[in-house]
Amino acid sequence: MNRNTRFLIVGLGLIGGAYARRLTAMGYAVDALDIDPDAIEYALQEGIICQGAEYSDELVGRADFIVFGLYPTAMVEWLQAHQSALRPGALITDVSGVKTGVVDEVQSFLRQDVEFIGSHPMAGRELTGVRNSDERVFRGANFIITPTERNTQAAIDAVHQLAEILGFGRISQLSLREHDEMVGFLSQLTHVIAISLMNCKDNTHLAAYTGDSFRDLTRIARINEKLWSELFLLNKDVLAQEIDGFIQELARVRDRIQNNDQEGLRALMVNSTHRRAFFDKKN
Amino acid sequence: MNRNTRFLIVGLGLIGGAYARRLTAMGYAVDALDIDPDAIEYALQEGIICQGAEYSDELVGRADFIVFGLYPTAMVEWLQAHQSALRPGALITDVSGVKTGVVDEVQSFLRQDVEFIGSHPMAGRELTGVRNSDERVFRGANFIITPTERNTQAAIDAVHQLAEILGFGRISQLSLREHDEMVGFLSQLTHVIAISLMNCKDNTHLAAYTGDSFRDLTRIARINEKLWSELFLLNKDVLAQEIDGFIQELARVRDRIQNNDQEGLRALMVNSTHRRAFFDKKN
Repeated sequence: MNRNTRFLIVGLGLIGGAYARRLTAMGYAVDALDIDPDAIEYALQEGIICQGAEYSDELVGRADFIVFGLYPTAMVEWLQAHQSALRPGALITDVSGVKTGVVDEVQSFLRQDVEFIGSHPMAGRELTGVRNSDERVFRGANFIITPTERNTQAAIDAVHQLAEILGFGRISQLSLREHDEMVGFLSQLTHVIAISLMNCKDNTHLAAYTGDSFRDLTRIARINEKLWSELFLLNKDVLAQEIDGFIQELARVRDRIQNNDQEGLRALMVNSTHRRAFFDKKN
Repeated sequence: MNRNTRFLIVGLGLIGGAYARRLTAMGYAVDALDIDPDAIEYALQEGIICQGAEYSDELVGRADFIVFGLYPTAMVEWLQAHQSALRPGALITDVSGVKTGVVDEVQSFLRQDVEFIGSHPMAGRELTGVRNSDERVFRGANFIITPTERNTQAAIDAVHQLAEILGFGRISQLSLREHDEMVGFLSQLTHVIAISLMNCKDNTHLAAYTGDSFRDLTRIARINEKLWSELFLLNKDVLAQEIDGFIQELARVRDRIQNNDQEGLRALMVNSTHRRAFFDKKN
């Protein structure tokens, strides 16, 4: 990867659009593909891409570095349909929130003269589309690279460099499984909680009484249902287990309440206070 | 209640201290009692009370309006021990986060020539003590008055006026049961969730990967275990039921994940998105 590396963003939405903005601002040549002509039109007008199309063999064939901003299953389908157009030696990465069943799947059928390496920019907004894209959400955020045995050090280094260019704060490597367990707990379970808290009863008559804690817990209940239903199912075993573990912990609190076990409740609160303090320190 | 109304704060902690600061700043005479001599000493030095003591029949006897900043059970015990010292006609309120079993209990044994009316300032911080008290947390916050059949309109009006002086944004009335159901869902259940999310597994090795959503959901896992274990048990029936309802909703999500029910998951997300939008509108 160098100053002449030519990028192609496939799927110019909230995240793909932010990649395009930042890479173009940093002086790289960036093309884009998107099935929505309006997204391409907007990006051309804004000057955040050189050229764009719904699909173009020419743009695919001239790209050195391709970033998929598509949903995971759409990316797999796209690569199955169009991998013959890739330039030999092309490097490919994604932005998917789930890796097992995606990265290994792509690597199983991809041409041997190109390389796919998974990565996950852990940043986003409760919005969609290139018009809402904003590369500032990357500042200080986490970026995870998920190399497998099939990946080269050169590819790992190139994605690491990409993350630095994009402005991420902490760039680290995890295995596919480690990544999915981390995301299953920290991100997917928290979204399940927020969704369930909004849905568990008709609470709209209480809206006027809400304070910060309820609003903080439910902010992410506004969710892109197409993307997240797909992510949940791609990580189903991990996520189902996380939900079960969390349900068991809730049941423990309920049991101590029902048994008037004040000492037991205090112990749980002391533990949660101690652990949360550790999270504050780390951030 | 008028400019000459003399206040007594019993329990000069985070909330009691903030009442004292604001009332003194607004020109009222405020005394205070606290078992911690250091709290009284600090408040005198800061000029936020006129006089203070660990206990004083004289200060109790000259108060027109008494506000209990004590934990609910401590307040009940205090009134049982010291109600003989109250001035005839005195008005008394509290700041407790649970009302059933507290307000009705106090009203059942209190002298007939004084009046107790429950109220709940819905504001706080993850800190304790008068040194951390700050009346600015009241600005725009909710204040709930919980009158019973035993209360007079004059008492309701006086507590309403108190809430206005303190700077609360929305002042409303609920029955004891309505209050406890609202608090059980919006405040107590959210704290149970935050505690359980921190406790359900050893997650400290994930601290470096946390984003905003996890931090937002667990901020209130740092909790005053003495106060909250008491509040949970005072509201045990309501809270246990809320936890069970929430567990059922989580199990529904888990089942749809395990059944690969993408349409069903989407429907839950569409509903949570719709409801959360309503909460944004209201605030």
